[in-house]
Amino acid sequence: MKANPDRALADLYRLREIGRYKTGVHRPTLSPEDMETRHWLVGELQALGHQAGIDGIANVWSRAPGDGPFVLAGSHIESQNHAGWLDGALGVVYALEAARAAHQAGLGVVDVMAFADEEGHFSGGFIGSQSFAGQMTEAEIDTLTDRSGRGTLRELLAANGLADRERVQIDRSRYLAFFEAHIEQGQTLEASGNQIGVVTSIVAIWQYRLIFEGAQNHAGTTTMAIRRDAAAALQRVWNQIQTTFPDLAGPHSVWTAGNITLDPGQPSIIPGRAEMLFQFRDADQATLDRLHAHLQTLVTDEDRTGPCSARLEIISQTVPALMAKAPQAALKAAGEAIAPGKTLVMPSGAGHDAQVIAPHVPSAMMFVPSIGGISHHWSEDTADEDIKLGVQVYVDAVRRILTP
Amino acid sequence: MKANPDRALADLYRLREIGRYKTGVHRPTLSPEDMETRHWLVGELQALGHQAGIDGIANVWSRAPGDGPFVLAGSHIESQNHAGWLDGALGVVYALEAARAAHQAGLGVVDVMAFADEEGHFSGGFIGSQSFAGQMTEAEIDTLTDRSGRGTLRELLAANGLADRERVQIDRSRYLAFFEAHIEQGQTLEASGNQIGVVTSIVAIWQYRLIFEGAQNHAGTTTMAIRRDAAAALQRVWNQIQTTFPDLAGPHSVWTAGNITLDPGQPSIIPGRAEMLFQFRDADQATLDRLHAHLQTLVTDEDRTGPCSARLEIISQTVPALMAKAPQAALKAAGEAIAPGKTLVMPSGAGHDAQVIAPHVPSAMMFVPSIGGISHHWSEDTADEDIKLGVQVYVDAVRRILTP
Repeated sequence: MKANPDRALADLYRLREIGRYKTGVHRPTLSPEDMETRHWLVGELQALGHQAGIDGIANVWSRAPGDGPFVLAGSHIESQNHAGWLDGALGVVYALEAARAAHQAGLGVVDVMAFADEEGHFSGGFIGSQSFAGQMTEAEIDTLTDRSGRGTLRELLAANGLADRERVQIDRSRYLAFFEAHIEQGQTLEASGNQIGVVTSIVAIWQYRLIFEGAQNHAGTTTMAIRRDAAAALQRVWNQIQTTFPDLAGPHSVWTAGNITLDPGQPSIIPGRAEMLFQFRDADQATLDRLHAHLQTLVTDEDRTGPCSARLEIISQTVPALMAKAPQAALKAAGEAIAPGKTLVMPSGAGHDAQVIAPHVPSAMMFVPSIGGISHHWSEDTADEDIKLGVQVYVDAVRRILTP
Repeated sequence: MKANPDRALADLYRLREIGRYKTGVHRPTLSPEDMETRHWLVGELQALGHQAGIDGIANVWSRAPGDGPFVLAGSHIESQNHAGWLDGALGVVYALEAARAAHQAGLGVVDVMAFADEEGHFSGGFIGSQSFAGQMTEAEIDTLTDRSGRGTLRELLAANGLADRERVQIDRSRYLAFFEAHIEQGQTLEASGNQIGVVTSIVAIWQYRLIFEGAQNHAGTTTMAIRRDAAAALQRVWNQIQTTFPDLAGPHSVWTAGNITLDPGQPSIIPGRAEMLFQFRDADQATLDRLHAHLQTLVTDEDRTGPCSARLEIISQTVPALMAKAPQAALKAAGEAIAPGKTLVMPSGAGHDAQVIAPHVPSAMMFVPSIGGISHHWSEDTADEDIKLGVQVYVDAVRRILTP
């Protein structure tokens, strides 16, 4: 059971022509181009003898014929707006290649999924894998609207003839493992000279809104002594974060201030309200808890000692998703067999559908290098040789699970 | 020559009914309500025998009959959107009251101005006084558009029948002094138990854009070590400002971060660009120069030592406007005569039309207290007794200049 690397690369080139934008693609979920790729995938799977279709949330699903053993494989297939050609599509094509290789070898069964909207055109992302994992209600679907103004999720599902279809649910007992391949979206592989990343865990993302309330006032006539400047309070807490987090964080921790709003936001008015969106990520629960407790202390101290009120609002706190041992070991063994010394064990700093599937089926993820670490941009790219090596390792890892 | 305080208060109450909003007013420049107040003022001045009119930039101007000596008096009459009833109108009504008192007493001549758009509906403000002082070209007027979307200044002038009128220019040789009264917009008078403020100088406002450019990247997959986070660079410089300015500043200096933009402003993306609008104010040139040099050093140091580029863009740097000695002395003497021990000499932290007139005619400003220091809000207010005391002091100061 072996991959055909040139066939996989040709499939990726073909997908790049659907919704092409410069050297990347523009294929938002449920756009005509996105639907074209989904229909193409269904056709390829049916040609292998799979039952396959697009379900009521736009997931492409398939069930291969045969008695097993069974593996589930896939990723998402839509892109971010005007973004890269491999983010998502790579994992779907690798899964398709594994299904073909299994079919040709007569070695078990690989079902393929192309999840809908991992990229979050309609929400925080992952709605396809969440639906598949039984974590998406009809009421939640009712609330979802495209961020770019193309309409509600319901409207776009109806426009594509999917409104009345069932949403396919995961069959937990069927699968030995779930495999997802993806571009790394960082520079760790490239900088260390590796070609295959085997993911140990997908980090948790803890997101917060820091809110400071003081008194809006005239920036010329209000003396420094009597000001209750919400921006100044934000600055003090932000500075504490930046100077104390390095000592408290773990070796892979990252933290980011992504947005700041000063209200009313005019140069001659002292802001009466200031907000900062802040997040940190780590795969280690103890580190997450430690950073959270410290952040809460910084905000509480400012609230108690400063002239403004300060409070910490939790937007979301996901849990780290540990990858399963057996499929991880299969990826490592395949990597060492095919490209000795080029495999790195590493956490994933980005979220992926595998984190949604991991609680239900033993899951593993494999990375290929991203040139310059660039992603979510049309210039995202991976060397052809890395794409071709990756699919060989991926298919060999699936083989190792199917034939232990 | 004496004010009629009840008449002045009644005029202010009358103006409050034109465009009333809660206890304040909504009279943006060249709105129907703004024009109604201007026409009312022209009528009052003509009733005193003045030549009076509205000129090609919506300034109300007047020339009283008589051989002098001559004083110019006034302020602006439009309001900020949904703002206070006294900001501007108070100084116009005091000027009108001085003209009436001079008329009744046969003591010289008081010409009255109600400047257009001190509040900056169309720009950074002061376009009426700048036009009057010969500092506003036709080309500059071509560029001005209402911030609230009501159209261009040209369109609104035309809609009010002012497009073809001349713009009246200041006659420098005519006047002994210019007087402007205004609400303080701060808490200095209230907190010190004073009722009359005599302004020594109007602060300069130095406005900047601090611009930081790094590399936009994924907030999960980009390690802290390799980030070029523009927000982090902004934070470092902002922290330096907040911790070092107190030691460098003068006793009346104020500094304010009014707006911050992180680009793209999403919580999962490291900002590639960050901007902060920052200003400081002082009436002392040496202090202004010292703060400017220090700010430039902080930005240059970050540019040299940090991973992002940093640069300081000057938006505007006005000059401090010193008030003239003679009319200042007249205000002080009038204050001490009418309300002994209730007069405070102080700088103005806000900008006023007097700063535009000061280089052309010896100018002075008088403040009355603002309750709670509130301004630019409909709840702005001043006690009736303070309004009535203020107009008596103001008219007496004009008398002292006319009859030295």
